[in-house]
Formats: sequence, C-alpha cells, structure tokens
Amino acid sequence: MYQLKDMIKNKPLILVTNDDGISAPGIRFLINIMNDFGEVVVVAPDSPRSGMGHAITLEETLRCDKVVIDKGPQSEYACSGTPVDCVKLSVNKILKRKPDLCVSGINHGSNSSINVIYSGTMSAAVEGALEGIPSIGFSLLDYSHDADFSEAEKYIRKITNAVLKHGMKDGVCLNVNIPKKQSDININGIKVCRQANANWVEEFEERKDPRGHKYYWLTGKFINHDDGEDTDEWALENHYVSVVPVQFDVTSYDSIDIVKDIIFNE
Amino acid sequence: MYQLKDMIKNKPLILVTNDDGISAPGIRFLINIMNDFGEVVVVAPDSPRSGMGHAITLEETLRCDKVVIDKGPQSEYACSGTPVDCVKLSVNKILKRKPDLCVSGINHGSNSSINVIYSGTMSAAVEGALEGIPSIGFSLLDYSHDADFSEAEKYIRKITNAVLKHGMKDGVCLNVNIPKKQSDININGIKVCRQANANWVEEFEERKDPRGHKYYWLTGKFINHDDGEDTDEWALENHYVSVVPVQFDVTSYDSIDIVKDIIFNE
Repeated sequence: MYQLKDMIKNKPLILVTNDDGISAPGIRFLINIMNDFGEVVVVAPDSPRSGMGHAITLEETLRCDKVVIDKGPQSEYACSGTPVDCVKLSVNKILKRKPDLCVSGINHGSNSSINVIYSGTMSAAVEGALEGIPSIGFSLLDYSHDADFSEAEKYIRKITNAVLKHGMKDGVCLNVNIPKKQSDININGIKVCRQANANWVEEFEERKDPRGHKYYWLTGKFINHDDGEDTDEWALENHYVSVVPVQFDVTSYDSIDIVKDIIFNE
Repeated sequence: MYQLKDMIKNKPLILVTNDDGISAPGIRFLINIMNDFGEVVVVAPDSPRSGMGHAITLEETLRCDKVVIDKGPQSEYACSGTPVDCVKLSVNKILKRKPDLCVSGINHGSNSSINVIYSGTMSAAVEGALEGIPSIGFSLLDYSHDADFSEAEKYIRKITNAVLKHGMKDGVCLNVNIPKKQSDININGIKVCRQANANWVEEFEERKDPRGHKYYWLTGKFINHDDGEDTDEWALENHYVSVVPVQFDVTSYDSIDIVKDIIFNE
C-alpha cells in the first residue's frame, strides 16, 4: 500500500484528467466532486483523444498551458498530448509533489471489458499507477455529450473515499464503469469483478471518396464471449457499477511453462 | 490452442506489421525471413508510429493501399493508421482468411519490461491475439536505422517455427526482445521470462520557442526496480533473447478481495 502520510497532514492533492478533452461535461462533473475531497489540479487534453490507448508523444513537442474553463478552486492546464502524456507531465513538471490520487474521466462511454486497453481514460489511470499514485478511471455507459451523470455521483464519492482512505496496491488501479441512467431502473450497487472476455468484430465500413479511391471508417460490433457472473459485463447488464482492479504487468504467468515447452522441445 | 487445420493443408498465411513504418529496415528483414515460412501479406503503417500503444483511429478515415516496396513474393499494403488499425484492417478487409501467424517488428529498440504497454509493435501482436491469431512481436535492442539484425535471424526462425507448429494459448502472444549485436559477446540462447517491474523517470526536457513560450520534449531515464533473475531485463543484460508471454486480460485477480474489502468495509 502507498504511504499516505502527506495526505493525513494536509489536504489531499488530486490530479484530474480524461480523454474526452478538458471541456467535456464528464470531467467538469468529476472536478466538482473532487473539489470536496481536496486540492484539485486538472491536466487534461486540449481536445478529444478517445481510443488513444497508452500512446505517448515521442516525435512532436508538447504544450501545457494554464487555463480557466469555469469557476472553482481547481487549477487547470490544457495539454496538447495524449492522456498518458498529461499524467507524465503533471507528475514531472506541473505538480509541486506527487498527488495522493489520480482520477480520470468521467468518460462518455463504456470502458468495460476489452475496451480497457483501447481507452485513453484508463491508460491515464494505469500511468498513474505506474507513477505510484492511487488511481481510478470512471466511465459512464452513455456516449452522448449531454449524458446524465447525476446517478454516478454517489458511487464516485464512495469509491474515491475508500481509495483516499486505504490507498491502492502497488501496480494496480481501478476501472469503474457506471450504468447509463434509465428513468425506470435504479442502480443496484457496486460489484468488484474481473474483465469480461469480449472483443469487437465486423469492424470497418468501406466507402469511396469523390475521386473513387477507397477509404475506411472504424466501427464494429461488441461481442461478449463470457457468460461468467463475476465479470464487469455481467455487473453492468444487471445494473451494478463495475469495479475491476487493473494491473500493468501483462505477463501471462500461466503460459511461461507452456512457452518453454514449445520453444525448447519442439 | 488454436486449430491449425488450414495451415496443415496449405502454406501458412502470415501477416507482417510493425510500428516503425513499412519501409523500416527491421520489417524488411522480417519479411525476408517470413517468406521462407509461408505466404506473406504485409500491412504496416505508411510512416513511423512508435509509442502509439493500443491506439486506434476513431475520428479520422483510414487509407490502406497496395504498394511495392521491394522485390519478393509478399503482397504489401501501406496503411494510414496505427499498428492496431493495421491488424484490424487486415483481418476484416485485406486478408482472404484469418492468418495462421501475425508477426510484428523487428522493432528498432527495446520493448522489454514496461515498454510493452507503450509499444505499437507489441500492441499489434496483442491485437493479433485478440483476433485469435498466434502472434509474436520482435524487437532488437538497437534504436539506430542501420541496426544489425543478422544475429537475430536464428532466434526468430526458432521461435516462429515453434509457434507455427504448436500455436499459442488463447489470449496470449509473445514479446521477444533480442540483445544488440556486439562484436565481442555472443547471444547465450533464449530465456522465457516475466515482465520486469521497471519504469521511466525524469521524463521531460523543457524548452522555450522563439516567442518565449514553454514547450516540452518527452525523454527520460529507464529504471529497473526488479532484481529477479526470471525477468526479461535480467535475460537481456545477460545476453539472452527474452520471450515474455503477454496477455490482454489486465485484471489484477490478487486485488479483487482487497478492493472488495476497502469499498464495502470502509
């Protein structure tokens, strides 16, 4: 567990980022909540950076400028890079000390299951964990710009409170997905679960430009192959908030002996 | 294990991609080797896409055009997207059937340890695994354009042969890193290992543009915190080729009960 000595003495320092860009309604909602928990510094992309995964900016320069988006006690910086760049820049150049918490989101759209590896929101949280910061990515299962985040607030407060109080295991962050608000169905509570085994299929739409030259749009259908009741997909379908602990060690430990066998005894 | 029925009857169909771009020496070297193993289709980025992680192209259109880079039996396509886009497009639109093998690289530079999550080369291999294709990412620990790949060939052939013969566990691909050629030291062989616990620190260089406005270059120092002798970093330092089985399930199973405890019993 992280040492939270600093936090106990002082107000917690909270880094807020996302991948929908600094002016997206989801991050504005999250900033308002975080202002109640501590001193908030926002370092977020200056424009949408969805689907960036764990991309970093190697071949271009980065800008990161102080901005005022709306009123409040938070400090804010708009960054020209990816969500992962934002976390790296914050820790290395913007913040006066390592933050006590990094929150990313609220993403407009799901990052459950395999979406975790494509998601800029979750990659920012993973990068936070890599920097030794307790980190949480929040996503709402509603892609629209005017999504209703109101039902999410209670769960965001509960999970944030728990992580600020207890910290997080080294190398681990949380992937929190929240069901879309429906007038006739309430959220049943929180399920801590594993990532469902799912993927995307039929992924491209082929078109022709005005000069007759082919081009493609990424699209696709999400397929859940996993009928487990301990997965994030199950939780969300059954109106629970899903919480998946996510790690950056991607070693498949179960496969080490199998791979030894196939390489050395072929 | 994957069913390799098709492969036994026919010549294996091999997809080759990378993140350094279709004309990089590393992929040209890999294509030449793969031509001995089967029917090769190259679908690779039209320009360098290093550090793209698992990024996909959502907000822009994609182009993917047949090209001839140099002579040989392979078919080649240059794609405007990321390495992950290349794999998705290949499977969905370019290839006549699911390939028997996907190889990515040879990357100019290391993708050992934590670099696996930033790497476009490795994300292409992970995407291959997601599509149900036995997949391998190859990287040489030499960033230079005129890196010497000659010593790598023997190991690439051995590992490729093993994977073509035995397939790969569902949801798993291989991250292969090869030591840089040194005139006085030979490679000792292959070690199958786990991802070392390492990260990057002191990551930005701050400069001012001609108008006095701050900007940043991502840079940094790689720090290995892991003294295990079963890691990829240990293998590479001791002149072995490292092979890490990599999975796309990033659930931290060990943490599920801890997280339940901190959320529900705070």
